[in-house]
Amino acid sequence: MPCMSLADLPTPSALLDVARLDRNIAAMQARARALGVRLRPHVKTTKCGPVVQRQLAAGAAGITVSTLKEAEAFFALGVADILYAVGIVPTKLPAVQALRERGCRLTVILDSIDAAEALVAHGRTHGHRFDVMIEIDTDGHRAGLAPDAPALPAVARTLVEGGAHLVGVMTHCGASYACRGTAELVAMAEQERARCVAAATALRAAGFACPEVSVGSTPTATFAQHLEGVTELRAGVYAFHDLVMRGLGVCITDDIALSVLTTVIGHQRDKGWVLVDAGWMAMSRDLGAGDCGYGLVCDEAGTPLPGLRVSAANQEHGIVTRDDGASDATLAAQLPVGTRLRVLPNHACATAAQFDRYAVLGRDGGVDTWGRFNGW
Amino acid sequence: MPCMSLADLPTPSALLDVARLDRNIAAMQARARALGVRLRPHVKTTKCGPVVQRQLAAGAAGITVSTLKEAEAFFALGVADILYAVGIVPTKLPAVQALRERGCRLTVILDSIDAAEALVAHGRTHGHRFDVMIEIDTDGHRAGLAPDAPALPAVARTLVEGGAHLVGVMTHCGASYACRGTAELVAMAEQERARCVAAATALRAAGFACPEVSVGSTPTATFAQHLEGVTELRAGVYAFHDLVMRGLGVCITDDIALSVLTTVIGHQRDKGWVLVDAGWMAMSRDLGAGDCGYGLVCDEAGTPLPGLRVSAANQEHGIVTRDDGASDATLAAQLPVGTRLRVLPNHACATAAQFDRYAVLGRDGGVDTWGRFNGW
Repeated sequence: MPCMSLADLPTPSALLDVARLDRNIAAMQARARALGVRLRPHVKTTKCGPVVQRQLAAGAAGITVSTLKEAEAFFALGVADILYAVGIVPTKLPAVQALRERGCRLTVILDSIDAAEALVAHGRTHGHRFDVMIEIDTDGHRAGLAPDAPALPAVARTLVEGGAHLVGVMTHCGASYACRGTAELVAMAEQERARCVAAATALRAAGFACPEVSVGSTPTATFAQHLEGVTELRAGVYAFHDLVMRGLGVCITDDIALSVLTTVIGHQRDKGWVLVDAGWMAMSRDLGAGDCGYGLVCDEAGTPLPGLRVSAANQEHGIVTRDDGASDATLAAQLPVGTRLRVLPNHACATAAQFDRYAVLGRDGGVDTWGRFNGW
Repeated sequence: MPCMSLADLPTPSALLDVARLDRNIAAMQARARALGVRLRPHVKTTKCGPVVQRQLAAGAAGITVSTLKEAEAFFALGVADILYAVGIVPTKLPAVQALRERGCRLTVILDSIDAAEALVAHGRTHGHRFDVMIEIDTDGHRAGLAPDAPALPAVARTLVEGGAHLVGVMTHCGASYACRGTAELVAMAEQERARCVAAATALRAAGFACPEVSVGSTPTATFAQHLEGVTELRAGVYAFHDLVMRGLGVCITDDIALSVLTTVIGHQRDKGWVLVDAGWMAMSRDLGAGDCGYGLVCDEAGTPLPGLRVSAANQEHGIVTRDDGASDATLAAQLPVGTRLRVLPNHACATAAQFDRYAVLGRDGGVDTWGRFNGW
């Protein structure tokens, strides 16, 4: 229930604009529908029950998580179809099994014969059949097997012969964050799709069922021209968007649903510095693409103040300056001590993680509180 | 009570080596004694009751905080002498006053006539006499008034005539983090001391009592040759130390009390990559001085593995490589899936803030849990 107003909020606070959130959720869901695939949002950005409930209400089919704590928290909220998208290791299998035995359809991923052997050995010892996807490397940026790797059918064989259930293949094209321009993003989305489908084709040719083909990142989900052969799209940061997404052309400033509310606490007039109480503890140390400092500055109502950024940060201090670095003696008069501002984040996943709750700005101007969680 | 062993801990976990912690606490306390000043530790690094209790037991006189939440939490634990070392703004004064009326000797800081006028106006309206220190700029890196600023006695006059209690002057020489070599650090420590003492001298010459002169940062506290005219030293990160402090020559590797326990989850053999489950969510995005990636790698027992670092990180993935970037096909065999490692952090304040508890390694090999808190 709305219980306070923007003016009552302490600073720093993480502000979430619910109208923008809902618009972002609807847009990605519409995109998945148009592409003919299910959407499985990655909840690592938001870690917030009400956000995920809105994604499911909009049509999402299950969720993706980055930690077992997320799986446990969202299963407790009634979400049963969960993909844990970080390579599984044996020490985490007891917790996975416990969740599954309570009714959670938790799928794990892996990308090596060693990990597959460890999983099937654990399953045999503990009388459990795990659901597993094989991670495919479609961009060279992190984990996964190449679509043509000889190990790919070998991993599938280890899983199937060892009694695990091979759900399919999945990939995350994180290299999309380094693309420049629409043409590169379109090409990267097609690369992600084509290579993941190729992996599924290779497995099927080797005699394995591979029902699911799961791809995605917010940039590739936004720029994919078609997703032939894919069954499922994953994306996370789209719910909030941020300056990195804006820099890629994935969103515009007006789509960014998360900001940090802050107060001016002082000045260094000679230098044109405005000190605020949002330092790196509030913004995170994430510098994004390196072109927006620690974030861009808006007034308290959310209207951008062009040419201002948080150009430096200590733990609980941010230094707002002109983005050209020029000293501006008028800033102190424009933004006196006590002025409240909003700062748009470089990377919503990192900034949101600095908070344990969101102050949610409703369409009626009321402010609600939605909890989020962190940790493992 | 120790209730588990290192082998039982989930990953990622924040490990705290209690023997190193106690040694670091004792060393800084001995330093303050030798310099003839009180030590007021900054608790923003650790935000942990048992750590602060150890600092007070070792002889610390009060604490420094970076948020009102820290003040409230540590006052609830019985710490009454607290300096809130971020410029105060009127919206935070009701919470300050409430703490003070409950018996907390909470001192605030400010550095402008505007802020002083707002504080005394609030005090008059609400019938409260605040304890205030004036922040001095001794290094140009952030907030504070220059020691010879005409505004300095004017702020003092505003406070005293307005009914506030002028406790003294304080400074934080954060520019010490950018020093290179002992000579620069010694000179920076002397600059911090001399300029803060000069500010106190200027106030006394203008007729104001200025009983307290508070200086400090871990580097300047470590390299100060003497602290004549200073009454109090502040430092925070010394309790844990980190790679930034090591890079400055403030500590050695063996002093770093905080590390992140992580598990190998996969490899990209061709590239010499070892994937671990400590990404930037565990390490933070803080790259320190830029020479250690996201952290240096030790074995599970804490012995450094020379030449290895976390060279890249995603939210829940770290990529361990040789620090020369060369591909090394032997790494996958040396560090198979399931291997547990410790990663030393660039910046302990930032890494610790990614966790809600420490797994505390006792001298007996047992593991205890100490809670910490985050947020505002």
